[in-house]
Amino acid sequence: MRTTVGIVGAGPAGLLLARLLHRSGIGSVVLESRDRAHVERRQRAGVLEQGTVDVLRAAGAGERMDREGLRHDGIELRYRGERHRIDFPALTGGRSVMVYAQTEVCKDLVALQLEEGGPLLFEAEALAVEGAEGDRPRVRFRHEGREDVLECDYVVGCDGFRGVARKAVPAALSRTYERAYPFGWLGILADVPPSHDELVYARHDRGFALLSMRSPTVSRLYLQVPAGTDAGEWGDEAIWDELERRLETADDWRLRRGTITSKSVTPMRSYVHEPMRHGRLFLAGDAAHIVPPTGAKGLNLAVGDVVTFADALIHLGDTGSAERLDAYSETCLRRVWQAERFSYDMTALLHRDPAATPFEDRVQLARLERIASSRAAAADLAEGYTGFPLGERR
Amino acid sequence: MRTTVGIVGAGPAGLLLARLLHRSGIGSVVLESRDRAHVERRQRAGVLEQGTVDVLRAAGAGERMDREGLRHDGIELRYRGERHRIDFPALTGGRSVMVYAQTEVCKDLVALQLEEGGPLLFEAEALAVEGAEGDRPRVRFRHEGREDVLECDYVVGCDGFRGVARKAVPAALSRTYERAYPFGWLGILADVPPSHDELVYARHDRGFALLSMRSPTVSRLYLQVPAGTDAGEWGDEAIWDELERRLETADDWRLRRGTITSKSVTPMRSYVHEPMRHGRLFLAGDAAHIVPPTGAKGLNLAVGDVVTFADALIHLGDTGSAERLDAYSETCLRRVWQAERFSYDMTALLHRDPAATPFEDRVQLARLERIASSRAAAADLAEGYTGFPLGERR
Repeated sequence: MRTTVGIVGAGPAGLLLARLLHRSGIGSVVLESRDRAHVERRQRAGVLEQGTVDVLRAAGAGERMDREGLRHDGIELRYRGERHRIDFPALTGGRSVMVYAQTEVCKDLVALQLEEGGPLLFEAEALAVEGAEGDRPRVRFRHEGREDVLECDYVVGCDGFRGVARKAVPAALSRTYERAYPFGWLGILADVPPSHDELVYARHDRGFALLSMRSPTVSRLYLQVPAGTDAGEWGDEAIWDELERRLETADDWRLRRGTITSKSVTPMRSYVHEPMRHGRLFLAGDAAHIVPPTGAKGLNLAVGDVVTFADALIHLGDTGSAERLDAYSETCLRRVWQAERFSYDMTALLHRDPAATPFEDRVQLARLERIASSRAAAADLAEGYTGFPLGERR
Repeated sequence: MRTTVGIVGAGPAGLLLARLLHRSGIGSVVLESRDRAHVERRQRAGVLEQGTVDVLRAAGAGERMDREGLRHDGIELRYRGERHRIDFPALTGGRSVMVYAQTEVCKDLVALQLEEGGPLLFEAEALAVEGAEGDRPRVRFRHEGREDVLECDYVVGCDGFRGVARKAVPAALSRTYERAYPFGWLGILADVPPSHDELVYARHDRGFALLSMRSPTVSRLYLQVPAGTDAGEWGDEAIWDELERRLETADDWRLRRGTITSKSVTPMRSYVHEPMRHGRLFLAGDAAHIVPPTGAKGLNLAVGDVVTFADALIHLGDTGSAERLDAYSETCLRRVWQAERFSYDMTALLHRDPAATPFEDRVQLARLERIASSRAAAADLAEGYTGFPLGERR
């Protein structure tokens, strides 16, 4: 098989990239190791930045999102029983976010790709990326019981943190930056209307809690738990009781309970691999970087990466200049590090670190009070939450 | 001896408090363990927040400050050879700071007190504060070889971190919050015009450096050094060489060298004692809290405390209501924790922590880039630097 751009992985990064390239008349093949049902079902992020929303619309993939997604103009911070709203449009000159699950984004993009786009092979397991240094990089993969080779002009690794693409960058050229957190998120899906119409981020002495939603009838809630916690340790009633404690307010707000349909623990990690390009191999999304889920940056970062790649390749076709393609890693990393910083700071703002000293606990509360009392500090948070500029070049 | 307000310590907090009370017709006696020359010579802070400047003027103690002080409308941040200015008035609606050494503030206040104010006793060593729970608190002190007692309606402990006032708060009622830093500041005074007209805060791979000044002809410069460093380990040429390295820029800026007239190492600590009041004993300034010098908050916090106390006492006299006096600790601590947070964050922004991981180093640079590229983030810093509201009540 031959194509212009070989895309490894059909998560939101790979699928959106295929879509963007297709709309510009550039051929691609997407290889995905799992089956379609798995791709359309894996629970991940649910908050789309303003820039991501704009990109999906421009790519002709925003129709159902605009119909079913929930535009959110703010979030609520809770601490010591106090409630403080961050008003995004007022603080950022009109920006907002869209609550629309990653599963739905993937369903929309899969359907479009199968209807209109180039080949999208499910259960096609990439084994290795080879020849990235030369003119004809290749992806070796296994599909329907046979090994095959996809020959490309470019390979984009969208195959996540455990994918094979990153392994094609020689260790001697790689720099990695990492942080593990001593806690994770126990997340549930529940068949109950959300108890608040915006996301609620709660800092509590017992640990962080997040009230979120997938739709007007499905709630998504999270509890900070120690790293290594098994979701099975937590009974349904215990989860609701703990959410109730951590989300408590001084007023008469109440948490609605419902049937829990899914329960899992997400470990938390910060990770960056530099550079994000090696020869004709480009890394995008989780293949190159991971953020803790606080602040919902993961999917949005992946979108920024593939938009940057697609723009650069289109620019090469239009002008003959590889300048933007050559700057891919640097351009992406500027935004990646801002999102890493934001996710790290927002995690530190809201979680209880078991190693924190009483001094650090008080500084944490002072940070929340600062955000609640200074328009500048709140605007800094709102700008970060609604998203850093996409594919910005110096 | 009897007085209304016994003030322990003739640093800027104690001296300003005596001045504020005198201007409102309230009697006080100031006890200072050291001699006048020592009080007028000890090198400390040099940056007055807008609110501190306003208070000194209103207290009739701003004349020489307005003549000789240097109004600064910004600071410069340096990292990776880049220079980025924070424009205070543009970011805060007109606020600025004044560079005027603490020694000069003390000289002005000592002169005013001796000319117009109540008793100010030098070499009067406070031994203990007693009876704070009752109506007539006392300060036992030694003066001219004899023990004596100062009987008061109120005692204000302005006697610094190592003073006796704080010891009168029973341990069972005290909560302390503390952080030690693995580095300190090696500071020099040099007879040379400052090499830049505003303060320069430099983050460098080799450690933090600060270019500051005391006057148009005297420079004050600092180097981050490991905790426990002896200033004598550093030769003059080595200091200038290291300053030059850490302050280097991509353009043709040059550091001017001159004769070093003073050399010392300041340890760095964050510390808060709660509550700041016990019965009729009130703690102010370093007696209650310490900040690392980054961001120059120490003197300004002390000013906030004594303004809060003086206002509360005047309010009691005017209205008969002790409400503000009762709220003293809570009112001060709100501002104290904001300054603790600010000083801690600004320290983390600029210093090299020997225990920092490569990930944390990159997050530090991303923070500097964020401040350089977002008006909101820069405004948050500028508001903190020019000062949090003084004596604000809920």
